[in-house]
Amino acid sequence: MQKIRSGTLAALLLGSIFTPVLSHAAPADSAAIRDSALKDDVAFAFTEGLTTEVGPRPAGTPQEARARDWAVAKLKALGFSNVRAEPYTMPVWVRGRDEARIVSPFPQNLVLAALGNSGSTSEKGIEGEIVYFASIADLEAAPAAALKGKIAFVDHGMKATQDGSSYGYFGAARRQGPSIASKKGAIAILIRSIGTDHHRVPHTGVQMWADGVTPIPAAALSVPDAEQLARVIARGQPVKVHLTLTSKMLKDQPSGNVIAEIPGSDPTTGIVVAACHLDSWDQGTGAIDDATGCGIAAASALQVAKLGQPRRTIRVLMAGAEEVGGDGARAYYKAHGAEKHALAIESDFGADRIWRVDFKLPQGHEVLAKRIAGALAPLGVGASTQEAGGGADIAPLVKAGVPVIDLQQDGTRYFDLHHTPDDTLDKVDPAQLRQNVAAWAVTLEAVANAPESMGVN
Amino acid sequence: MQKIRSGTLAALLLGSIFTPVLSHAAPADSAAIRDSALKDDVAFAFTEGLTTEVGPRPAGTPQEARARDWAVAKLKALGFSNVRAEPYTMPVWVRGRDEARIVSPFPQNLVLAALGNSGSTSEKGIEGEIVYFASIADLEAAPAAALKGKIAFVDHGMKATQDGSSYGYFGAARRQGPSIASKKGAIAILIRSIGTDHHRVPHTGVQMWADGVTPIPAAALSVPDAEQLARVIARGQPVKVHLTLTSKMLKDQPSGNVIAEIPGSDPTTGIVVAACHLDSWDQGTGAIDDATGCGIAAASALQVAKLGQPRRTIRVLMAGAEEVGGDGARAYYKAHGAEKHALAIESDFGADRIWRVDFKLPQGHEVLAKRIAGALAPLGVGASTQEAGGGADIAPLVKAGVPVIDLQQDGTRYFDLHHTPDDTLDKVDPAQLRQNVAAWAVTLEAVANAPESMGVN
Repeated sequence: MQKIRSGTLAALLLGSIFTPVLSHAAPADSAAIRDSALKDDVAFAFTEGLTTEVGPRPAGTPQEARARDWAVAKLKALGFSNVRAEPYTMPVWVRGRDEARIVSPFPQNLVLAALGNSGSTSEKGIEGEIVYFASIADLEAAPAAALKGKIAFVDHGMKATQDGSSYGYFGAARRQGPSIASKKGAIAILIRSIGTDHHRVPHTGVQMWADGVTPIPAAALSVPDAEQLARVIARGQPVKVHLTLTSKMLKDQPSGNVIAEIPGSDPTTGIVVAACHLDSWDQGTGAIDDATGCGIAAASALQVAKLGQPRRTIRVLMAGAEEVGGDGARAYYKAHGAEKHALAIESDFGADRIWRVDFKLPQGHEVLAKRIAGALAPLGVGASTQEAGGGADIAPLVKAGVPVIDLQQDGTRYFDLHHTPDDTLDKVDPAQLRQNVAAWAVTLEAVANAPESMGVN
Repeated sequence: MQKIRSGTLAALLLGSIFTPVLSHAAPADSAAIRDSALKDDVAFAFTEGLTTEVGPRPAGTPQEARARDWAVAKLKALGFSNVRAEPYTMPVWVRGRDEARIVSPFPQNLVLAALGNSGSTSEKGIEGEIVYFASIADLEAAPAAALKGKIAFVDHGMKATQDGSSYGYFGAARRQGPSIASKKGAIAILIRSIGTDHHRVPHTGVQMWADGVTPIPAAALSVPDAEQLARVIARGQPVKVHLTLTSKMLKDQPSGNVIAEIPGSDPTTGIVVAACHLDSWDQGTGAIDDATGCGIAAASALQVAKLGQPRRTIRVLMAGAEEVGGDGARAYYKAHGAEKHALAIESDFGADRIWRVDFKLPQGHEVLAKRIAGALAPLGVGASTQEAGGGADIAPLVKAGVPVIDLQQDGTRYFDLHHTPDDTLDKVDPAQLRQNVAAWAVTLEAVANAPESMGVN
C-alpha cells in the first residue's frame, strides 16, 4: 500500500472547520452538517462490517445474497425507512482455477486472473506460443494469420491519473482485446493488468464478447508478471505458455438491489437517489470497490436526517451486479424509472478525498450549483466546468435526463487496488473517508432541501 | 511497491563524485574505483538475467540447478577464473497447494503460504477452531489444554526498521511458533506474515522442527488476511478454518555452490570471500533475495580487477540452499575451511543504499578500517562501532575467526518484499544498486590490496 499523507489532509480539514464559512453563499446548515460529518463513524463501520462479515460478494452468488441480508439488517438498525431487497435474476460467470506457466524457454509460473466471462480451458489446460502486442491498436492491426492457434499478449501499460480518465483508454485492452483476439483465431489472450501498481495481484474485470464471437480463455497477468513475460519475449526465442483457466457459466441466479430511505416531507418534489454497489469482485473484499461508496451514501443520508426531515426523500440505492454489467441499475430503472427523480449521485471510485465537483443540472439552477460549490469549498473541493456523467449504478436514470452531480474522488492510487485481491479494508483511510461523507452530506442536504423545482417525471 | 526517491540518491552520489576525496585518508584508487563502479551495469544485468532466465530457484530443485548452470556460464563470460559448481546433496521440502478458508461464522477465503518444512494435510484438508495469540509469548504461556485439536493463530506484527533488527525478535513466531504449537497438541498453526507490507502476498520462510516434535501444517497469512482473521475473531464467535496445505519431503536432492575467482598475485596472503546466495524462495523470482547480492559481489570484484591484479585472490561464493538452513555455507566450509581466508563479506539484504559499515578485524588493523571508512564516506556510508557479524553464507568462516566486514543496506522496505511473490525485478532501484557496487568495490579493493597481514590459517 502506498502510504497516505493523513497529516496533510487532517490539517486541511481542521483548517476548514475554523474557517468562517458563514460568510459564504452557503447557508448555516452546511457548516453544521460538515462539522458533524467530519466526525462520522458510520461510513467506516459500514465498510468494516461489510468487508469483514461478508467479505467478497460476487454478483449473483450466495455471498452477494449474504451482503443483501447484511445490508438490510444494518440499514434498519441505522434507522432508515422502507428498507428492502429488490430481487432479480441474471446469468453468472464463476471463476475456477487460474494457473499459468512459461513452458519454454525459461520455465516458471506466472500469476494471473481470468477476466469476467472468460472462456474455460479443460482441467488439463492449453498450451500455445505467445504473440506480443505493445498495444490494443497493434492487436487490431495484426493480420489474422499471425494469431491463428496462438496466444495473444497485449502489454498495454496504464499510468495513474487523479481523475481516473486513463482507465477509459487503456481499459480497452480488457474490454475489447478478447473479442478481437478471438476473431483473429487466437486460442487465448493475456493482457497486462489494467492497473498502476507493481504487486503480484492481477486486476480482473468484466469483458463482454462481441456478437458472434467464440469465447476464448482471457486473463490479466499481474504487472510484474506482464513485465517478466515481456522480458522473456524480448530475448527473441519463441515463448510457449501453458494456461489452465477453468470457469463456468450459470443461468438465472438470484441477485438484487437494496433500498433504504430517509422519507421527505413533500413527495411531489422528487427523490434524490444516492447510489453505490453492493457486489464486488471475488478476490478482494471490495473495500474501496465499493463498500466505502455504500458507507458514504448511507452515512451522509443519516447526517442530513440528523438536521430534521428533508423536503425530498433521499433514497440510498445499493445496487447489485455492477461489476458484471449493471443488472442492478437496469432492474432499479425498470421498477422505479416512472417515479419522479430530482437528482442522482453515485460513489464508486474509492474513498480518497473528493477534490472536484461536476454538475449536470437543469438550466436555471446555477444558484443551486453555486450554493453547493460554496458549501464544498471549505473541504478543499473545487467546482469544475465539466458536465457530470454519473456512474454505472445510475446510468439509466442519467440517460433518462435525471439531473446528476459527481463528487470526484482522487483516483491517484485507485488503480493500484481496483479489482485485485488487494482491495481490502486496510487500504481505506478513515480521515479521507470522513471528508467524503462531509462532501456528500452538504451536497445531499442542499439538493434535498432545495426550494427549486427539479427532476424528471 | 513503495516508490524510491531516486532523485535524492542521485544527488547524493553526484555530490560524492565531485567531492575532492583525494584529500581523505583514502588512496587515489578508491576514488577511481568508486567513480567507475557508480556507472556499473554488471550488477543489474546479472540480476535481470538470473531473475528472468531462471526465475524462482528453490534449494535442491531443478530450478536451482539451472541457476548454477546459468551462473557458471555468466561468470565465465564476465572473465572470472576457476569458475565451477561444487555439488552436494540435501533433503528438500516441496510446496503443494496452499489454500485456506474461514468456514464460520463468515465464510471467505484466506491467502496464505506454507512455511518451509510444514507438515502436509491430506488433499481434502483439515478443519479446526482458531485459538488466538497476540504474540509468541502468549502462545508459549498458553496451557496445552487450550490448543489440543485446534489451530493456533499468532498475530505478531512487525514494524519496519532501517537495520532489519526487528526481524530477529518478531521472526520467532515463524521460527519457534510451529514447534511450540505442535508440542501443545495444535493440529496446525497460522502466523501473521513476518512482513511490513499490506498486500495479499504472504511471507514464507523456513522453520525447523525442534527435536522430537511432530510436524504439523504451518503457514503464514498475508498481513491483510491476518488482520481480517483477527477482526473476525474479535466478533466473539468461535471461528472455524479449513486448511489445505499439501507438501512433500524429498531425500538426497542435488544442490551446490558456484565459485568464481579473481586470482591474486600473492596466494600466501589469503582469500577474500565475497558471498551471496543463488537459491531463492519459490514464489517470487528472488530479485532482492538474493540475485542483487550475487550481482553486487560479482560486479564489485570485476571493478577491482579492472585496476589490475589484486594482491589477494577475491573469491565470489554464490552459495546454494541459504533459505532453508545454509547447506551451501556448510559445504563450502567443509571443502575450503582449511584454506587461508583473509576476510569474508556477504550481501543478502536487498540492494537499497548501504548506509553503515561494521568491522570485525584483528587487533592492530584500525588503520585498514579507517582507510575503508574514508573510502566509503563519500558514498554516504558511516562507520559504526558495532561489531560485524556476517550472514548465513559465511557463518562457518566467521565462527572460525575469519575477519568480516558488513556493508549494511537500508532495510526499511526489505520486509515489504522478503520471501513473497512480490520479490521481483521491478523492486530493484538501479541507482541504489550501483551505490552498493561502489561501496563493495572500494572495500574489496582496500582489503585485497592491504599490506597488512590478516586472516585465518
